[in-house]
Amino acid sequence: MDTIYKRRSIRKFQQKSVEQDLLLKIIKAGMNAPSAVGQQPWQFVIIDDKQVIEEVVKVHPNAKPAMNAPISILVCGDLDKERSQGNWPIDCAAATQNMLLEIASLGLGGCWLGIYPREQRINRLRELIGAPEHIVPFSLIALGYPAEELAPKDTFDAKRIYYNSWSKKF
Amino acid sequence: MDTIYKRRSIRKFQQKSVEQDLLLKIIKAGMNAPSAVGQQPWQFVIIDDKQVIEEVVKVHPNAKPAMNAPISILVCGDLDKERSQGNWPIDCAAATQNMLLEIASLGLGGCWLGIYPREQRINRLRELIGAPEHIVPFSLIALGYPAEELAPKDTFDAKRIYYNSWSKKF
Repeated sequence: MDTIYKRRSIRKFQQKSVEQDLLLKIIKAGMNAPSAVGQQPWQFVIIDDKQVIEEVVKVHPNAKPAMNAPISILVCGDLDKERSQGNWPIDCAAATQNMLLEIASLGLGGCWLGIYPREQRINRLRELIGAPEHIVPFSLIALGYPAEELAPKDTFDAKRIYYNSWSKKF
Repeated sequence: MDTIYKRRSIRKFQQKSVEQDLLLKIIKAGMNAPSAVGQQPWQFVIIDDKQVIEEVVKVHPNAKPAMNAPISILVCGDLDKERSQGNWPIDCAAATQNMLLEIASLGLGGCWLGIYPREQRINRLRELIGAPEHIVPFSLIALGYPAEELAPKDTFDAKRIYYNSWSKKF
């Protein structure tokens, strides 16, 4: 699937906003990820308030790409929806990856900024958006129309494939 | 992206093997997932030995779909490759999701059978494939040519979208 290779981490964005129907398409892609026992333990916060982003960057320097992105989407785990214990971060990761692929397939660019499992980042973000304790900020996706072009990349490594047993390479 | 909606959890398979070039395409899709600081903390084990699968099912009854799948792929975390602590399961989840999408886009069917974070499943699988301690079985993907047809599904839920703050719906 070409989109898998087209998707690169984009950190430079045009100062052009992202249309609302595209934003909803991206979140819809996230909501259609598989989850353990179909629990869908997620919530989504669209952030375009630069003051929030400025505060995030203070505790999370690697989140700087969000500073010049017109929009960011915060994917949160919702512990109240979890029925298969310990699976919510896995489900939220699948949702985040779906969203990054949808972003790439729409001709937009995005970057996955990790929040979970770093306590300080989680707590500060939860505070900034005013969410209750059972909401756990998981990933922040900075996105927009790209202002940099990165060629597709392939990181295939045949040495990492085994056959039935660790002692047998495929 | 249509493939996101076409991907359904397929649990019934034809007794037809999967061509090797398709298997490699699927693993390649996994290896091209994003990972924290680009660490790629993963390894892949192709399993077609039914004795291994039978033993897995004993500690993991939900893994039964793998019994009638011609092939399964075990995605493992490799702790020796982890540079961003605590991120390897997130990276392996993104890899698993890429693989499920590639499977769907190739006209095959697959099912994500969770291993991590269940200790018993992890230990038994590690033992069965004879892997060292730093290898952590993460997910088992049962796959093959589908023997059931499931219509695309959409689990979008507008109530789960917020705008800058938990007190404001989008």
